[in-house]
Amino acid sequence: MKKDSKSEIVKAAIELFNSNGYSGTSIRDIAELAKVNPATIAYHFENKKGLLEYCFTSFFEQYTHLIEEAYVQIDQGAKACLKRIVANLLHFQCENILLASVVYREMSMNSQIVREILTTYSLKEKFYFQKIFERGFEWNEFRPHSIPYLMIQLKGYLTMPFMNAHYIREVLFIFPNEPFFEQKYLRAINSWIEHNLSVASIKTKEVMIN
Amino acid sequence: MKKDSKSEIVKAAIELFNSNGYSGTSIRDIAELAKVNPATIAYHFENKKGLLEYCFTSFFEQYTHLIEEAYVQIDQGAKACLKRIVANLLHFQCENILLASVVYREMSMNSQIVREILTTYSLKEKFYFQKIFERGFEWNEFRPHSIPYLMIQLKGYLTMPFMNAHYIREVLFIFPNEPFFEQKYLRAINSWIEHNLSVASIKTKEVMIN
Repeated sequence: MKKDSKSEIVKAAIELFNSNGYSGTSIRDIAELAKVNPATIAYHFENKKGLLEYCFTSFFEQYTHLIEEAYVQIDQGAKACLKRIVANLLHFQCENILLASVVYREMSMNSQIVREILTTYSLKEKFYFQKIFERGFEWNEFRPHSIPYLMIQLKGYLTMPFMNAHYIREVLFIFPNEPFFEQKYLRAINSWIEHNLSVASIKTKEVMIN
Repeated sequence: MKKDSKSEIVKAAIELFNSNGYSGTSIRDIAELAKVNPATIAYHFENKKGLLEYCFTSFFEQYTHLIEEAYVQIDQGAKACLKRIVANLLHFQCENILLASVVYREMSMNSQIVREILTTYSLKEKFYFQKIFERGFEWNEFRPHSIPYLMIQLKGYLTMPFMNAHYIREVLFIFPNEPFFEQKYLRAINSWIEHNLSVASIKTKEVMIN
């Protein structure tokens, strides 16, 4: 019973944070939508900030786990590892599309929660991506690039459809909750990995000359 | 005198919207920082919403103008046109970094202003980018790609450093207000245009074989 009310509260909070923003949502709104007493929210999360913190943490715990899990197989190749991580993160975000949108929008604020997330999860993510790029250069899989600028590009790909949900839907008529979005968008990112990041095209040229 | 107070109000509003969010900022805060009477704000902008609308409009009027201006020379080549637009938009956003951050964050909300911006400026932008991509395919400058997915990638590049300002600064130690950011980041986007979008690499191969 307790567990159900907790997940109902989280579900309602994500929906309301998404449509009205975190500041535009009250505990009363959440209690009403989740059909619980405001005291139940206080019991589980203390206050609205605690609820947002819970959203952030559960998002980034899973996000980081997906990176760590795939990184274990780095010895099979840096490019393969990067592709696996991108596919997993994209799938996770498409499955949790409202949560991803809420998290990314709130991450643009300069709040205490955001600073905490940056110094734990984002630095961990940076650590793994940096390792993968470095291995890729070392093993001659990737062309030399500036790692921070690669990170901006990669993070741009991974966050854009969730940060600009209205733009994507209303201007491009693309709906990230539909299954073919994930496939087509993954193909677009993989094309970037193949053509911009990898040395594969140079190798092909050598093969054609020999 | 009047003109000065107006620009002081806008400057203060952008600064406060950026650090505390639009909902977290009051007219009184803005009046205090701009050193004007709240009535002066009402005189120029009616209310807080009018002030945000002014920020949006002045941002997207300039943004759209830069696209239109460069599009005039499309006959000199689609790739050259796209590169010129990207350079101009990046420069404009780097020069107006706080305004860009405020605009992009608020664009993630589903408000009436956002819907109005999408149906005017974003559709116009889409029109021009679509034309450029189509010309690029036609003139054999670009490899065939899905236009909406190219738009996601391009918009991701153009918005990422301004939507994720804290991440960029605190995780990657990159400061988009420093002059070399613009140069290095422009190089990264141009590399995407050359390697992922253009047919140039295929042409090079042909040259090497013949």
